[in-house]
Amino acid sequence: MKSILSTNYYVHFEQSAYDQLDQYLANNFHSNIFLLVDTNTHKHCLPLFLEKSKLEGKVALVEVPAGEAHKNIDTCSLLWNKLSDLGADRKSLMINLGGGVITDMGGFVASTFKRGIKFINIPTTLLSMVDASVGGKTGVDLGVLKNQIGLFSNPEMVLIDMDFLATVSEREMRSGLAEIIKYGFTFDKELWQIIKVFEGIKMDVIKKLVHRSVEIKNDVVLKDLLENSLRKSLNFGHTIGHAIESYFLESDDKESLTHGEAIAVGMVIELYYSSVKFNFPMELTNELKTFVDDFYGKVNIETSDIAEIIDLMKYDKKNVSGKVNFVLLDTLEHCQLDIQLSPEMIKDGLNFYRK
Amino acid sequence: MKSILSTNYYVHFEQSAYDQLDQYLANNFHSNIFLLVDTNTHKHCLPLFLEKSKLEGKVALVEVPAGEAHKNIDTCSLLWNKLSDLGADRKSLMINLGGGVITDMGGFVASTFKRGIKFINIPTTLLSMVDASVGGKTGVDLGVLKNQIGLFSNPEMVLIDMDFLATVSEREMRSGLAEIIKYGFTFDKELWQIIKVFEGIKMDVIKKLVHRSVEIKNDVVLKDLLENSLRKSLNFGHTIGHAIESYFLESDDKESLTHGEAIAVGMVIELYYSSVKFNFPMELTNELKTFVDDFYGKVNIETSDIAEIIDLMKYDKKNVSGKVNFVLLDTLEHCQLDIQLSPEMIKDGLNFYRK
Repeated sequence: MKSILSTNYYVHFEQSAYDQLDQYLANNFHSNIFLLVDTNTHKHCLPLFLEKSKLEGKVALVEVPAGEAHKNIDTCSLLWNKLSDLGADRKSLMINLGGGVITDMGGFVASTFKRGIKFINIPTTLLSMVDASVGGKTGVDLGVLKNQIGLFSNPEMVLIDMDFLATVSEREMRSGLAEIIKYGFTFDKELWQIIKVFEGIKMDVIKKLVHRSVEIKNDVVLKDLLENSLRKSLNFGHTIGHAIESYFLESDDKESLTHGEAIAVGMVIELYYSSVKFNFPMELTNELKTFVDDFYGKVNIETSDIAEIIDLMKYDKKNVSGKVNFVLLDTLEHCQLDIQLSPEMIKDGLNFYRK
Repeated sequence: MKSILSTNYYVHFEQSAYDQLDQYLANNFHSNIFLLVDTNTHKHCLPLFLEKSKLEGKVALVEVPAGEAHKNIDTCSLLWNKLSDLGADRKSLMINLGGGVITDMGGFVASTFKRGIKFINIPTTLLSMVDASVGGKTGVDLGVLKNQIGLFSNPEMVLIDMDFLATVSEREMRSGLAEIIKYGFTFDKELWQIIKVFEGIKMDVIKKLVHRSVEIKNDVVLKDLLENSLRKSLNFGHTIGHAIESYFLESDDKESLTHGEAIAVGMVIELYYSSVKFNFPMELTNELKTFVDDFYGKVNIETSDIAEIIDLMKYDKKNVSGKVNFVLLDTLEHCQLDIQLSPEMIKDGLNFYRK
């Protein structure tokens, strides 16, 4: 599979990724290498990685508990202290092996340790392969507010080995697919054509979808690194989606959603706004709704939840001067950015999903 | 006083700095402005700043307790949460009014809030004017280890109004002078000629020293932004100095030193190494020692302190592969970088100072 060149680093795929890693390590001096894993990737991904990379015995393992709940500054403090205790210096290298939590947080910790050490990302989930692998976003959550603390910082390289997907649960695979659906609606409708007729998840199809998704995201990022315009399109589904995700995360009596589940609901609702405000074809909105209801299962949003979900949107990173900004579509593959909606319409969308 | 152009921003001085600030605010949209102060600058600097800048009523005040002990990630968390609660967004501006703790920490908080908002630095102490005002270093301490967490990030502009120096204690003025002495030995011996004959601190002399110091530091930074070579010279006195500063900070029965007091001692010791290893003129080493003993007072380092001070040097940010690197001089205005010393010689230097 063809490597993809991003700003100043490559995303390498499959076996050739290990060859490139090998070469990189041979050509660059590092005083030591730290390998960041979580409790899950330690168990399920580390053995495969050590075997394929031949790095057994050459890396110092640093472990954090798995899960979004640990993607915070406290975990970063643990990591900074651990790196310090283990003698990390400015010539140390950090390899982040895991899902988006690990690559986002590991990238942030590396980029701020002694004002920045180099790091390599190895996403192991579908979501992190298609979403977090390019774009240079690093960071952690602030309370339930996602990715509020962070910075733009690029890895030395990204390795995508789809054998890791064998360790990913079906629910997490569906989570990653939500981001691919997003690329389908915003940039390449063919992706949606492929996914909407899915009968079970097939690995050969997934591999192609992953490569194409990284290609799309990379094109967008290269055109608008700092998210001043085009890159905002990638937030389609995320204004409502993040708020729903945060709401379910902090709610005591509701089970947390995966990122993709929340974003899938967010896309249905934001397509509804698109249909009402920009005449986006209602049959496509309904098509997505039917698919999402069926593929992800119905998320139970009650009338009494709505006010708080709307309240959470005020922390969205796209907001300016207190105004909540949406990304809507007027047609497939064409976004309208920085759109503001009335409180009534926002509610209508949530109720549209609930039907 | 002439403005100084750094990488992509200016350092403005005295009254013209306020005119430039005025113009900047008129020409750039900000959804809101946050003014970071500590308990000291709130009381002593804020009134003057609000009067001269005419920003009374146009800024939201954010306050932290004064002192190096609060330059840590916990204080950053408080600030991120406060910004979030007060509705800060990507178009917010942060103005940091204070000493190095405030400009370093404020710059870090701003650069990592929602992946970076813009900030302006207004150093109010002599130390922060000559040391922290250019160079883009932001960050906080990790335990007693100074500036271990941070990143390179530039302010929009730096305002130096030396009227703030009227609020600075004599001890803090002496602290700032240590960095000017450092520029004297490493880059412009005339500064040392001026300071060594000081009889009391005179403001007209100080103003010239500040401008020249910023000019020197800026020249160095522009030549070596990321501290790969030349910029390391600015760490003269700091390998030993930081360790002494950390040691006194964490010691229960010793009073903390100012940064400058520790660095002054560090320079005496590192000049001693320079004389032994590179034949730096011993009479100049003794000249500095006599001045430092007299001007800063003798710092009480006991034999029993030495092992732990040496141990603390292993966390120095310049270290690579566990080796402690020193900046030494072979002659005035000429540094030798990345020099390693034997444990015996390191001890000898500490004992030289103790004499």
